[in-house]
Amino acid sequence: MKELEHIIDTALHEDIGIGDITTETIIGDTLFASGIIRVKEDAVVAGLAIAEQIFKRLDPGVKISYNTKDGESVKNGQILAKIMGRASSLLKSERTALNFLMRLSGIATITRLYVEEIKGTGVVLLDTRKTTPGLRIVEKYAVRAGGGTNHRFGLFDGILIKDNHIKVAGSIKDAIKRIQRAKPYHKVEVEVKDIVELKEAIRSGADIVLLDNMDLKMLKQAIPLAKGRVQTEVSGNITLKNIKAVAELGPDFISTGAITHSAKSIDISMKLTNIYRKEKK
Amino acid sequence: MKELEHIIDTALHEDIGIGDITTETIIGDTLFASGIIRVKEDAVVAGLAIAEQIFKRLDPGVKISYNTKDGESVKNGQILAKIMGRASSLLKSERTALNFLMRLSGIATITRLYVEEIKGTGVVLLDTRKTTPGLRIVEKYAVRAGGGTNHRFGLFDGILIKDNHIKVAGSIKDAIKRIQRAKPYHKVEVEVKDIVELKEAIRSGADIVLLDNMDLKMLKQAIPLAKGRVQTEVSGNITLKNIKAVAELGPDFISTGAITHSAKSIDISMKLTNIYRKEKK
Amino acid sequence: MKELEHIIDTALHEDIGIGDITTETIIGDTLFASGIIRVKEDAVVAGLAIAEQIFKRLDPGVKISYNTKDGESVKNGQILAKIMGRASSLLKSERTALNFLMRLSGIATITRLYVEEIKGTGVVLLDTRKTTPGLRIVEKYAVRAGGGTNHRFGLFDGILIKDNHIKVAGSIKDAIKRIQRAKPYHKVEVEVKDIVELKEAIRSGADIVLLDNMDLKMLKQAIPLAKGRVQTEVSGNITLKNIKAVAELGPDFISTGAITHSAKSIDISMKLTNIYRKEKK
Amino acid sequence: MKELEHIIDTALHEDIGIGDITTETIIGDTLFASGIIRVKEDAVVAGLAIAEQIFKRLDPGVKISYNTKDGESVKNGQILAKIMGRASSLLKSERTALNFLMRLSGIATITRLYVEEIKGTGVVLLDTRKTTPGLRIVEKYAVRAGGGTNHRFGLFDGILIKDNHIKVAGSIKDAIKRIQRAKPYHKVEVEVKDIVELKEAIRSGADIVLLDNMDLKMLKQAIPLAKGRVQTEVSGNITLKNIKAVAELGPDFISTGAITHSAKSIDISMKLTNIYRKEKK
Amino acid sequence: MKELEHIIDTALHEDIGIGDITTETIIGDTLFASGIIRVKEDAVVAGLAIAEQIFKRLDPGVKISYNTKDGESVKNGQILAKIMGRASSLLKSERTALNFLMRLSGIATITRLYVEEIKGTGVVLLDTRKTTPGLRIVEKYAVRAGGGTNHRFGLFDGILIKDNHIKVAGSIKDAIKRIQRAKPYHKVEVEVKDIVELKEAIRSGADIVLLDNMDLKMLKQAIPLAKGRVQTEVSGNITLKNIKAVAELGPDFISTGAITHSAKSIDISMKLTNIYRKEKK
Amino acid sequence: MKELEHIIDTALHEDIGIGDITTETIIGDTLFASGIIRVKEDAVVAGLAIAEQIFKRLDPGVKISYNTKDGESVKNGQILAKIMGRASSLLKSERTALNFLMRLSGIATITRLYVEEIKGTGVVLLDTRKTTPGLRIVEKYAVRAGGGTNHRFGLFDGILIKDNHIKVAGSIKDAIKRIQRAKPYHKVEVEVKDIVELKEAIRSGADIVLLDNMDLKMLKQAIPLAKGRVQTEVSGNITLKNIKAVAELGPDFISTGAITHSAKSIDISMKLTNIYRKEKK
Repeated sequence: MKELEHIIDTALHEDIGIGDITTETIIGDTLFASGIIRVKEDAVVAGLAIAEQIFKRLDPGVKISYNTKDGESVKNGQILAKIMGRASSLLKSERTALNFLMRLSGIATITRLYVEEIKGTGVVLLDTRKTTPGLRIVEKYAVRAGGGTNHRFGLFDGILIKDNHIKVAGSIKDAIKRIQRAKPYHKVEVEVKDIVELKEAIRSGADIVLLDNMDLKMLKQAIPLAKGRVQTEVSGNITLKNIKAVAELGPDFISTGAITHSAKSIDISMKLTNIYRKEKK
Repeated sequence: MKELEHIIDTALHEDIGIGDITTETIIGDTLFASGIIRVKEDAVVAGLAIAEQIFKRLDPGVKISYNTKDGESVKNGQILAKIMGRASSLLKSERTALNFLMRLSGIATITRLYVEEIKGTGVVLLDTRKTTPGLRIVEKYAVRAGGGTNHRFGLFDGILIKDNHIKVAGSIKDAIKRIQRAKPYHKVEVEVKDIVELKEAIRSGADIVLLDNMDLKMLKQAIPLAKGRVQTEVSGNITLKNIKAVAELGPDFISTGAITHSAKSIDISMKLTNIYRKEKK
Repeated sequence: MKELEHIIDTALHEDIGIGDITTETIIGDTLFASGIIRVKEDAVVAGLAIAEQIFKRLDPGVKISYNTKDGESVKNGQILAKIMGRASSLLKSERTALNFLMRLSGIATITRLYVEEIKGTGVVLLDTRKTTPGLRIVEKYAVRAGGGTNHRFGLFDGILIKDNHIKVAGSIKDAIKRIQRAKPYHKVEVEVKDIVELKEAIRSGADIVLLDNMDLKMLKQAIPLAKGRVQTEVSGNITLKNIKAVAELGPDFISTGAITHSAKSIDISMKLTNIYRKEKK
Repeated sequence: MKELEHIIDTALHEDIGIGDITTETIIGDTLFASGIIRVKEDAVVAGLAIAEQIFKRLDPGVKISYNTKDGESVKNGQILAKIMGRASSLLKSERTALNFLMRLSGIATITRLYVEEIKGTGVVLLDTRKTTPGLRIVEKYAVRAGGGTNHRFGLFDGILIKDNHIKVAGSIKDAIKRIQRAKPYHKVEVEVKDIVELKEAIRSGADIVLLDNMDLKMLKQAIPLAKGRVQTEVSGNITLKNIKAVAELGPDFISTGAITHSAKSIDISMKLTNIYRKEKK
Repeated sequence: MKELEHIIDTALHEDIGIGDITTETIIGDTLFASGIIRVKEDAVVAGLAIAEQIFKRLDPGVKISYNTKDGESVKNGQILAKIMGRASSLLKSERTALNFLMRLSGIATITRLYVEEIKGTGVVLLDTRKTTPGLRIVEKYAVRAGGGTNHRFGLFDGILIKDNHIKVAGSIKDAIKRIQRAKPYHKVEVEVKDIVELKEAIRSGADIVLLDNMDLKMLKQAIPLAKGRVQTEVSGNITLKNIKAVAELGPDFISTGAITHSAKSIDISMKLTNIYRKEKK
Repeated sequence: MKELEHIIDTALHEDIGIGDITTETIIGDTLFASGIIRVKEDAVVAGLAIAEQIFKRLDPGVKISYNTKDGESVKNGQILAKIMGRASSLLKSERTALNFLMRLSGIATITRLYVEEIKGTGVVLLDTRKTTPGLRIVEKYAVRAGGGTNHRFGLFDGILIKDNHIKVAGSIKDAIKRIQRAKPYHKVEVEVKDIVELKEAIRSGADIVLLDNMDLKMLKQAIPLAKGRVQTEVSGNITLKNIKAVAELGPDFISTGAITHSAKSIDISMKLTNIYRKEKK
């Protein structure tokens, strides 16, 4: 919560700074308005509550009512929300609110595409740490809105032993032992790049193995070998084209950074439909 | 500078939080390493100095030397930088540094494509405020690295009178008058959507007109009409496919949000090539 | 808004810190009071809303009603506002609220004197960046309350090319060219100290010239020369005595730092007129 | 220290924000310069070390050497300091550094005038809490540089019982008793407005009495009465004209808000005398 | 107030960070609950209002009603407060609220034991600066709740001249003189370790002497010697066993760090007694 | 790292605030000193590096050399570290540094006692979230220094399903299922209070069970039942007297809040042994 407040304050400050010189000069504080937020392409929506918080952080008097909710599919032209309040407040926070809504809906939309692709296989789609610096908490939320599941949030809440860790520890076995002793409360995931490493990870007590950048051929060998002994996560070069083929091999998880680092923003706009003067109480 | 420090601290904190449990447990503080940062697709680089600041913020002992510089084109496989320092420091800041480098290089790369497209026309490519919340300062930097020019940073440092402002003021003329009186030191830009509005903006003393969402046919009429009287910016639905045709009509500026809000990250990776123990002094 | 909150929090914290040891010990939380804020010399008021925010930041239960408003002239002895709320809250925020009100009214008052002096000439009085560190946003507000107009807020939102910039660029022409290319959206102001420089600035496309420290004789030559080609700002050694003579030469703007850096505070005091115990709900 | 860092960061940020658009565009990072800081009227200097910290906060490479020190009297035209470093750094922090130096020297200068006036009387000149919001720590420093002594910093580190406190407590005696019990480690000062109250304060065990807004006639009665029993502070309507007469009555302290709330800034300017290109190492 | 807000935010953030993964996953936002906070050993309560602020900071909708108040003695098993609100909010802030309540009640409880021990002697029990870093403001509050009195808050609001200060100043006399001149508004306390130093402190005008680590024999000599000339504070090796004997010697104050640095937490628990679904409005 | 910086800044600011009025007045900046930090009772040390950071944060010129290291047992009277630097800096940060060192050594010392008690049983001693608000990161570090192992840091990095969660989910089985789906990367721990719940937790796929407040008799039944199927943690009413008996029953972990919430501070003092004047360079 505090995290989100901080993100919102930073974003509003970045855009408004010492003031919106155009709006403050021309519009002043006495006008009120109502308007709509509309999507201009098909999408899965994410970020409505964040957009609301942005408008209200600037001006607690702004009111917003939703016509849909996060995680729902919407069609080009559909109205997402109605909004009303002081005209200057709406104009000053418009861009910041839309920038969040556009980006998060972009992530939810592409995530949904991947999830649909592997529907019925029982495989879980995971995200990665390849998120926008400073926005991970909201981008991981958008992944969930799109139907994905979150991998560890950061370096602090999950264990992933990579090649460099193994090199230092001497062997997969030693690396796992050290971490199990110090962090008995966490599952241990180990990144492996071939069958030899996979076997050692299984023998050494890994809970999950990350099959990194393996081609379909190697995956066909690796996944059955791991089945029932460790959970498996496939990662590397996953695309909308190949994810179904990978999923059909039966791993527990497939992870991809593309859903966060290369999502295209969804086009969303705000339009004031009515501007009026309100009696000051 | 303070802004950038804040962005970097937030991003490092987001990923590392209370500590990198894997690295701290297995690797400790006594090992050192050298490594390389390599690009895995053709790109225009941006963000090297920021990546350096990230590594050094975590550990001032890290050293980095560049093989290229921001704004240069690089080929798939090229080494961008060499890096050395405490192994745990490199591993802990790797993801944060790469996340910046990948995103900013993505922006620089797509910006360069647009700029190349209008080369020779004399038209200036501008960015917009459709940037990632919290990262505008670095994303606008990446636009410059790609060869673009920055439009106003935020609502506070430039004037843009839009339809809602005009509606409230009563007319374009009144809106411009108000702003000129209060902000005599700023150029005044006015958004117009047709020839009637364009003419009024010119008559009323606008310095720049934003020709918003006009099709080629209308632009063909509008731009010559404005020439020599006000500067012109074309905006809305600009793509790599149509930007050249628009530029050939001779506006002063073309602006597009796509270079920031929908840039795909460039694939960049870090690899430790050498891990060694160093005598403690 | 966030800026102002920050200024207020800093000021309250500076005065109250870990607590008002006198008031908290003697008065406690159960008493309420009403009182008045009164001006003790003729003045132009500025800062009433800020004072209100200060009282309410400490205690949202405080109520304030105004007898005047920012920008109005008031006479010695006049009541500016009535205030009521928890007695300890009023006493704890009194000094901080008055410190703002006294300083800002001081700025508004002296600004008004300058503005009155040049009334009817059509010349606009501008402030400078010679403001109290940390309080620029409220001091520039007080200038407007006094009838002045704000020059650029800081180094980030306006261009002013000074002698050092010119020295480095090689010539006024080159300096202007560089800045026009990089910042096409800003007006370009150039500081000139004699007629030669003025002519070069005009030739090179400056939008505004700052006639720096010129005596009346030189101004008489410079202003007509610039008329109709660039806007003119006169700056340096402006006093209440000479501003009218300067204004009559017909520049567009006259700027002076004295209205902010050497304004005398207006004497304003708060008095509790009634202290009573309120039933706790 | 942390307080001062915060003040400096706020001030630099306020002026520079997202960047000095003029200097960054025209000058870049490769030029170096040396220059002087010169006072343009007679003054007592204060703030040199703060100015230095400002320059170095922006750029640790800046070097400054002083020709005088805080608290010394300087003559119109005298050079206060020499400065050298990256040209852009000097230009970007110039205004902020000078704004501090001008204001603090203004306070030191007027304080010195008051102090000189009462020299030889043994009376101590005190400041008040009527300081610029957010700058109290540096303004109180400037008072000391001018030869004054600081009264309590804020509400948290000294006790001053005023009429409102007394009204609530029921009597001076009760107010003093309450505070002595809760804060046995602080001296107790009580504000009194006439001889009756003075006598009660003395009887009730006050350590210091503040003789508030008494005229010379009443002071002549009050001070001898208090002598040897409580310390006395005279406050209210103190001017350069009457302070000597008051001091000769023999109070322990005289306090005045004018030295902080109405000090005129001293005119101080920075000039770059030499700009050169330095080989990058 | 700002200090306390900061302490609460830090504590909540420390425990909850990016979210309570158990509660958010299993419980969601639609359930409400009521519960009780119960003490599990005899104690003096402190921290109820802080606990309330913690619950409400996370969720302003939480309601709490007290069955007792800070400073009261409670018996094992007694209910301290009833609480109701969103179930997830209660569970997320439970640990943080209890951690404060347990620690502060621990301090109040042990303080009360010391205070009871010296009841009737007229001696005041003081705390020290040996508090938990970051929590001094609330721990000093708990001391007051337990019946103790606060010594100076920190280095900034009270004077205590120790051996090192004296060594530098040359003599107790010189140290006192310097501080009296610079800080005329503070009482001066001097630490002395034997009768010689005590006599010098008295002669030199100390207001209070701290009799440091003296045994009963020396205290029997020192306290009568000081009586009526300076106030006396006994400090060092004070325990529940010896405090009465010390108090009977008649010092003004006895201080001990043990009441803050070695207080045992009181066992306090929260139990939800009723979980229900509430109609969303 | 950022967390620790923040803790240190907060603690220094809390004690020093606007300045150490005694030291700054009497000692000034020109004196230097060396000294020792000595322990005054037997202990296990923790916090040396933090104390060093505190001294250096205030003054980077302070030097410290250790005679021992964190986690080592020291005897009453032993010197922990030697310290040298500006005398005023040492005195100003002394209390803050010692407050950390005393508290953290207190935690390490009591933790060591518990750990010694169960030595050879193979059982791991865990801490809890009953830490001092704001200091968890350093207190958990002290637990490790004492030989303990950390349980989850907060609500965000580990799963613990308690009775309230189960009540809401409907059954242990349902609670586990929900969490496994959403957080596949975490081990799942479930709190159980009797054998029936234990059996359900095992059946439902828990990774760890927390045997809460069970007496020895029930533990004797529970632990063998769980062995080989889930890991077991015993919690509740663990004391130095009974921990060995519990450990001999063979659980995987025993956890206790007492090592953090009720640790007594270790008595540690700093003494300046040499004060001297240093030539200013």
